Amino acid sequence: MSGWQGCVQYLFYYETPKTLVIPNITVGFVFRFTQLLVVLYVLGYVCLVQKAYQETDSVVSTVTTKVKGFAFTNASSIKYWDVADYVIPPQGGNSFFVLTNMIVTFRQTRSRCPLFPDHSTVCVDDCDCIEGLNDPRGSGIQTGLCENFSTTVKTCEVISWCPLEIDSHLPDHALLDSAENFTVLIKNSITYPKFNFYRRNIAPHINSSYLRSCEFNRSSDPDCPIFRLKNIVSEAGEDFQDMAVKGGILGIIIDWSCDLDWWARKCSPKYSFRRLDSRIPNNDVAPGYNFRFAKYYMDQGGEEFRTLFKAYGIRFDVIVFGTAGKFGVVPTVVNLGAALTFLSLVPLVADWFLLTCLRKKDLYSRHKVSYLREDTDSEGETMRTIFGTK
Amino acid sequence: MSGWQGCVQYLFYYETPKTLVIPNITVGFVFRFTQLLVVLYVLGYVCLVQKAYQETDSVVSTVTTKVKGFAFTNASSIKYWDVADYVIPPQGGNSFFVLTNMIVTFRQTRSRCPLFPDHSTVCVDDCDCIEGLNDPRGSGIQTGLCENFSTTVKTCEVISWCPLEIDSHLPDHALLDSAENFTVLIKNSITYPKFNFYRRNIAPHINSSYLRSCEFNRSSDPDCPIFRLKNIVSEAGEDFQDMAVKGGILGIIIDWSCDLDWWARKCSPKYSFRRLDSRIPNNDVAPGYNFRFAKYYMDQGGEEFRTLFKAYGIRFDVIVFGTAGKFGVVPTVVNLGAALTFLSLVPLVADWFLLTCLRKKDLYSRHKVSYLREDTDSEGETMRTIFGTK
Amino acid sequence: MSGWQGCVQYLFYYETPKTLVIPNITVGFVFRFTQLLVVLYVLGYVCLVQKAYQETDSVVSTVTTKVKGFAFTNASSIKYWDVADYVIPPQGGNSFFVLTNMIVTFRQTRSRCPLFPDHSTVCVDDCDCIEGLNDPRGSGIQTGLCENFSTTVKTCEVISWCPLEIDSHLPDHALLDSAENFTVLIKNSITYPKFNFYRRNIAPHINSSYLRSCEFNRSSDPDCPIFRLKNIVSEAGEDFQDMAVKGGILGIIIDWSCDLDWWARKCSPKYSFRRLDSRIPNNDVAPGYNFRFAKYYMDQGGEEFRTLFKAYGIRFDVIVFGTAGKFGVVPTVVNLGAALTFLSLVPLVADWFLLTCLRKKDLYSRHKVSYLREDTDSEGETMRTIFGTK
Repeated sequence: MSGWQGCVQYLFYYETPKTLVIPNITVGFVFRFTQLLVVLYVLGYVCLVQKAYQETDSVVSTVTTKVKGFAFTNASSIKYWDVADYVIPPQGGNSFFVLTNMIVTFRQTRSRCPLFPDHSTVCVDDCDCIEGLNDPRGSGIQTGLCENFSTTVKTCEVISWCPLEIDSHLPDHALLDSAENFTVLIKNSITYPKFNFYRRNIAPHINSSYLRSCEFNRSSDPDCPIFRLKNIVSEAGEDFQDMAVKGGILGIIIDWSCDLDWWARKCSPKYSFRRLDSRIPNNDVAPGYNFRFAKYYMDQGGEEFRTLFKAYGIRFDVIVFGTAGKFGVVPTVVNLGAALTFLSLVPLVADWFLLTCLRKKDLYSRHKVSYLREDTDSEGETMRTIFGTK
Repeated sequence: MSGWQGCVQYLFYYETPKTLVIPNITVGFVFRFTQLLVVLYVLGYVCLVQKAYQETDSVVSTVTTKVKGFAFTNASSIKYWDVADYVIPPQGGNSFFVLTNMIVTFRQTRSRCPLFPDHSTVCVDDCDCIEGLNDPRGSGIQTGLCENFSTTVKTCEVISWCPLEIDSHLPDHALLDSAENFTVLIKNSITYPKFNFYRRNIAPHINSSYLRSCEFNRSSDPDCPIFRLKNIVSEAGEDFQDMAVKGGILGIIIDWSCDLDWWARKCSPKYSFRRLDSRIPNNDVAPGYNFRFAKYYMDQGGEEFRTLFKAYGIRFDVIVFGTAGKFGVVPTVVNLGAALTFLSLVPLVADWFLLTCLRKKDLYSRHKVSYLREDTDSEGETMRTIFGTK
Repeated sequence: MSGWQGCVQYLFYYETPKTLVIPNITVGFVFRFTQLLVVLYVLGYVCLVQKAYQETDSVVSTVTTKVKGFAFTNASSIKYWDVADYVIPPQGGNSFFVLTNMIVTFRQTRSRCPLFPDHSTVCVDDCDCIEGLNDPRGSGIQTGLCENFSTTVKTCEVISWCPLEIDSHLPDHALLDSAENFTVLIKNSITYPKFNFYRRNIAPHINSSYLRSCEFNRSSDPDCPIFRLKNIVSEAGEDFQDMAVKGGILGIIIDWSCDLDWWARKCSPKYSFRRLDSRIPNNDVAPGYNFRFAKYYMDQGGEEFRTLFKAYGIRFDVIVFGTAGKFGVVPTVVNLGAALTFLSLVPLVADWFLLTCLRKKDLYSRHKVSYLREDTDSEGETMRTIFGTK
């Protein structure tokens, strides 16, 4: 036998395990039942529930928003507000802020004024004030002078925009309380690039006249992309008037998760609403949401002055997410392969059952397992050993 | 045999299946061929095509954009525009808006004026108007008075910014039509944190003088990060002048997908352009992109007035994505493991072929499979059974 | 034997491989040792290090930021700056810009002026200027006239905002150098929606008075969410004053990666800082970060004029990322399955060792492997063959 022939034999002679068929219904049943369990698990849980046979893709989304509504307030010196006044930034992207409450300081100019009196600002003479002291948490840069704040109290003077903002008295009823009736139109187009799948949240059956009059309602108008702010906030489990005072952040969550194998046609957005900031009720440190912005003007003399707004309000963040799944070869192979391994463990269970639990286990063991005795390496002996004779 | 010895035997006596070598080239060939198919699949598809042996990381990206260009328009009362006028917001992040068309309402003040006449606003006397009516889709808050809109028609009066905006006549040729020649420089730096890999879209061989004069062109200047807006829009399959009238959203998609095992040096951005909004031609409900913003002024008397812009234009969203892959142990193990399971299925195929398709299948079956006869549990009988005699 | 009975036999007769126990400690040890290695790898690396048994979820995050601080500058004509002046946009989202340096052009009006002289703009008479020439990299739209720029040089005239900006002389010491002492409060709330897990970066033990006075410090105040800009920049390995001149982009990276199986309580944010733009030192093409914005005013005659800012500064991008892991059935099955496949490869190793490396390999081979001789298909011969006699 040449080497080449040996090589062919090695490659193409088929080596297969010798098997023993045991005509015992009990162990056969255990074997098939365990197999069935594994198959059911694989089909039922991994495939149907987890859809592990699918390739997935994440959503690519674009959002535009447009708020509408007017507010009239008697309490403020600025009485009338429209969209261009209270929506910041005006562009209407996926995050927009609706002003609901504010502290306005009119006609500030760059100049000098004494600080509001408190334990660290009251002074007797200039020695109590440090020239150039610039505390980020303060109100300006100290000049080192001690000036009359009122007829009774002197405080350190600062370089700042004067008059200083008095932000200790926030109106405890939101000034733009009618903001709850504002509406917002959300236009959202999504793509799953891997599957070349495109959709938008204005369904094909919606026409312009419906869009001009509809309002989102979970039961009656689930497809209308126009939301009343009050409803958004109340669906998030919050009270609008409450939230409007100190501001907050509210997530408008659009879920585009879809199974593109079977339900591509039914792929539609699911809206949900959730407050995103400070949901821990017993930790109200740094609550709400506010920021300062200013409108700048110039007087006839060419000097700049400004109106400073400390703006409280609700920032709406449109969060679009979703995963689409579609049958794919690689995940199927990986997950099926992993699950099949468990099938190859089933014989271990059945063998264990065969050799320990059955009445005739000794008989089965004798025929299934042979013991090689090295010390008596004669054919006959081996034979006897193999067949389990004493 | 003590228990300890039995334990050692159990642990360290090696139990191996008995096998039968069948010198049949056909079944051997079937066996090896099936094995080869599985191996080819694993190597070819899972490893080379899908690169399942790689760990992946998602891109972390930062984008700055800078638009340049000037527009002159005869049709509008504001004739000259530069970057600070038409790019909103001015910061140049990954989303910027270029104003192309607009409806401007000058010198609005907070006051009262009659509504534009339509079927719901025309009135005969004050009884037709509801004081305080505040429809978000309307133009202001009704005062309850019925005033002369013109000499012939009376309409309900509203508190609003007056004069009211007339937004029914949008110029049907974009005012800033020369915006198509604006250019935008996109600076994009990316990192794959897991692989400590850093790149930017201005390749190392690009120098300042090239950057001062170049313009992106797929064939001649594929590395230049300066894009002409017209080209971006036309590569997305849209017409700039068309899109400029009602506005829209255009995605500048930068793909940084790289194989860092072999091609790390060649990792460079691939640009593509796609319109992101309303690509369904037969559903033109709520088309385009517009928003309102205002510039605020103060007159000598300290009263605020504003210029309201209903701004139409193109929002450019720079979307950076990418996945880098690099050899990783865990994905290799998982995917190789799953694939190897299929190798362990190959003997099933070969056995089935052996026992059903071959001429000598009975002979093979007799030697491979033994049947245990429980009823004749004598050694000899069993022997006979095992070796398949009748 | 009826077909039905055959079917039952096929289904419920249990077929099990015949095995041979080899009482050789060496091969037994090799077998068990290899098994142990695989098990250790699976447990140690896949499970403990890579946590492949966990389902993962990506963080959903919301960020608000609030900068505080004042700047006074002698060099500029605008001497005093507060938050509303230097933070753009003012809303305090996850990206905010702090102005540090600038070129200001006051009182620009839409009019005509001659260009600054350089090789392409100097002219002798009107023939050298092209009417309507509109270079995006230029300064306006040429009128075709050649005008006196100074008494000695004539340049082409442009329609533009005049006077033109002179942006060749950027102050080489940042005007708002005191910006390094500004502080920023970062409020960050996160959710892992799949695990219904909520946290914010203001830990429950932090109270308002601590928040009013604390400042982030890796060793002494690691939980304080207030950061001094100088420290952020220096932790990123940059010099604030250096970066402030031409601007740049700085990432504030908050890592919320958590193991929710064991350490849910210890899930807290880890802050890191990194410069995001141009980290390649030998490629300083297009360095820094700047943009132009304007403040618009109206004079008594109703004509608009503006102050143009070419704003240099640092954009801070708060990047929140994180993956939470929690025990999940599917990843466990997939990864365990894949790893178990390797266990099924162990017998191959042990068999190879048994049949090649041991002294008695021929004996073992004779008893383990039988050769079927097709040409001598008599029982006796086969017997002899099976037991490997010559």
